[in-house]
Amino acid sequence: MSAIEALIGEFGRLPGIGRKTAQRLTYHLLKGRPDDSRRLSAAIDRVLAEVRPCGECGNLSSEAPCEYCRNSRREAALICVVEEASDIAAIEASGRFRGRYHVLGGRLSPLDGVGPDELNVARLLERLDDGITEMIIATNPSVEGEATAAYLHRAASRFPGLRVTRLARGLPVGGDLEYADGVTIAEAFSGRREM
Amino acid sequence: MSAIEALIGEFGRLPGIGRKTAQRLTYHLLKGRPDDSRRLSAAIDRVLAEVRPCGECGNLSSEAPCEYCRNSRREAALICVVEEASDIAAIEASGRFRGRYHVLGGRLSPLDGVGPDELNVARLLERLDDGITEMIIATNPSVEGEATAAYLHRAASRFPGLRVTRLARGLPVGGDLEYADGVTIAEAFSGRREM
Repeated sequence: MSAIEALIGEFGRLPGIGRKTAQRLTYHLLKGRPDDSRRLSAAIDRVLAEVRPCGECGNLSSEAPCEYCRNSRREAALICVVEEASDIAAIEASGRFRGRYHVLGGRLSPLDGVGPDELNVARLLERLDDGITEMIIATNPSVEGEATAAYLHRAASRFPGLRVTRLARGLPVGGDLEYADGVTIAEAFSGRREM
Repeated sequence: MSAIEALIGEFGRLPGIGRKTAQRLTYHLLKGRPDDSRRLSAAIDRVLAEVRPCGECGNLSSEAPCEYCRNSRREAALICVVEEASDIAAIEASGRFRGRYHVLGGRLSPLDGVGPDELNVARLLERLDDGITEMIIATNPSVEGEATAAYLHRAASRFPGLRVTRLARGLPVGGDLEYADGVTIAEAFSGRREM
């Protein structure tokens, strides 16, 4: 296989990148400065060499422990549980959470053979035993995310002083009621608040 | 900058890839098998090391001359002029052309300082002098592509036996007349054919 075909193939294996886009990316690199391409391949190699799951929370980071676990200005008694490390960036962008994280590395999915043992749950329970006052469950608002949240809620019942909360569901800000699905609207009704 | 941030930044420099997509690609590689990431960075490095413009036609290829110029079963007297090497794949996919190619490496664009000297035109004129019977101009149906085609048409007038043609413009197959723009419909009228 030619070098060009090989690179189109590798780009095409990435999620959301079809053959046309893979071709466009490949020819973009070919037309551009070689240094730009070199920086991209070096950045991939660097991530492979440096990034590891944080032993504390499971976040992916070049540092051990990760930037959130080592930051003493974040509230150590508050823990936000997410499915993936990539969810942390979205929460950080909201600017509303100043505690620590715990990354499950997925969600419960019995059909795919993913049970609690396949997720970073045992370490979470150890951490909950260590002075945590609130666990905010921020798994996705999907069937599997809800099942995972319910499982964590039950598993946390052994810590009587622990407050367990779940991110609110409702209409997305800036969204249009007309285009919201029925389940979301039903959640928005049952979670309605006094004005 | 962290390794993760650096890779998100490099992905984000690619065309059509915004920050969200760059994050998704980065975490996809982090979640996947290290070998998959290694193959991507190796494919980029291989393209950098191997691929060069063909000295004959300007196509980007690991071989010199490129696969089309060295293929003796393609008609050497027919030449199809394209703006970019990436256009060749689209023409090959049509299966309707069995001649050779010439890659200009862009289009005339005086505002961007791109004149004939910035394009692979001198070599084209040398090739036209060497037994070519037809030059099919396949520059894009854009203002700049048309200007480039007109320039090549004039430049080729010094070869009296040479037939110069341009790809037909009209309604795209499978398209909807209702959504076609006026200029395309006008072209379709003036290029209409007997049934």
